[in-house]
Amino acid sequence: MPVVTIKLAGNLTREQKRQIAQEVTNTLERVANKPKEYVYINFDAQPDEDWAIAGQLLDEE
Amino acid sequence: MPVVTIKLAGNLTREQKRQIAQEVTNTLERVANKPKEYVYINFDAQPDEDWAIAGQLLDEE
Amino acid sequence: MPVVTIKLAGNLTREQKRQIAQEVTNTLERVANKPKEYVYINFDAQPDEDWAIAGQLLDEE
Amino acid sequence: MPVVTIKLAGNLTREQKRQIAQEVTNTLERVANKPKEYVYINFDAQPDEDWAIAGQLLDEE
Amino acid sequence: MPVVTIKLAGNLTREQKRQIAQEVTNTLERVANKPKEYVYINFDAQPDEDWAIAGQLLDEE
Amino acid sequence: MPVVTIKLAGNLTREQKRQIAQEVTNTLERVANKPKEYVYINFDAQPDEDWAIAGQLLDEE
Repeated sequence: MPVVTIKLAGNLTREQKRQIAQEVTNTLERVANKPKEYVYINFDAQPDEDWAIAGQLLDEE
Repeated sequence: MPVVTIKLAGNLTREQKRQIAQEVTNTLERVANKPKEYVYINFDAQPDEDWAIAGQLLDEE
Repeated sequence: MPVVTIKLAGNLTREQKRQIAQEVTNTLERVANKPKEYVYINFDAQPDEDWAIAGQLLDEE
Repeated sequence: MPVVTIKLAGNLTREQKRQIAQEVTNTLERVANKPKEYVYINFDAQPDEDWAIAGQLLDEE
Repeated sequence: MPVVTIKLAGNLTREQKRQIAQEVTNTLERVANKPKEYVYINFDAQPDEDWAIAGQLLDEE
Repeated sequence: MPVVTIKLAGNLTREQKRQIAQEVTNTLERVANKPKEYVYINFDAQPDEDWAIAGQLLDEE
């Protein structure tokens, strides 16, 4: 029941997702005693144009 | 003002979305007395590669 | 793996939550063929002061 | 650290996103005293078929 | 149908929320042609202990 | 810019949050090459009554 959402700009490879999912799940199991099978992780990668920091889109110069 | 977000792996057909939207809206109207026209529903379907359970991506064997 | 988030203004009683959870889960099982035990539902009720429609907080006259 | 998520139906042009990001960031800086560089904005535009109001998908007649 | 979620650390006064809601709604109406009455805004303020940047909780020295 | 949201039932101690924030940030830095200072983490713990699995609230027998 931890539901972990990871939103980010750009892309992750399948291998990066695989490794992040594994490590984050291990962390939640070890530190918070959450049974592995209840840990849901969701990756949500979006183009730079859909993110802004400090009022500037990430693809702006 | 109930805003309902339904995130899931895989796809839903347009007909499945139509029926789920209708039933969930009815439930909120009947059980929680929310006027139908305030109920917003948002479907967010993502590929199996973007979800993990128990530390494994859904498309892993 | 459907993860359903229901955000709303005001409160729901425990009995309302119980009934909504049951009905929404049944809908997703019946219409989208999702096994019941994968359906996570999360209620997130917030005070009227934390919502606005049409630029007005819900607790404004 | 304000993280602002703007979910909507249909599309925004890059220029609309640019202007919205700028104005919303200015508002948060001016009204809430949040340093600009901590304001993250994320646009999440989805097709009409993925939204329902009052139990009807937005692309329904 | 723009649904805007503003998550932040610390608190906003009711007056700050009122003003932010008004300005953000105006921006979306003017820039994106969204009818005011469809713009939903939700504030979600959380204690510093529930946020981390760069791996440090916000209330850490 | 990874924005990581960790929603869960029950509570985490401050020390658990501190350690999870640190480990998840390290994972994203090492595996996805994200600069530490852009990684935002948000914990959102909610009472068992606000979660359901398989159509049952978590506090049900």
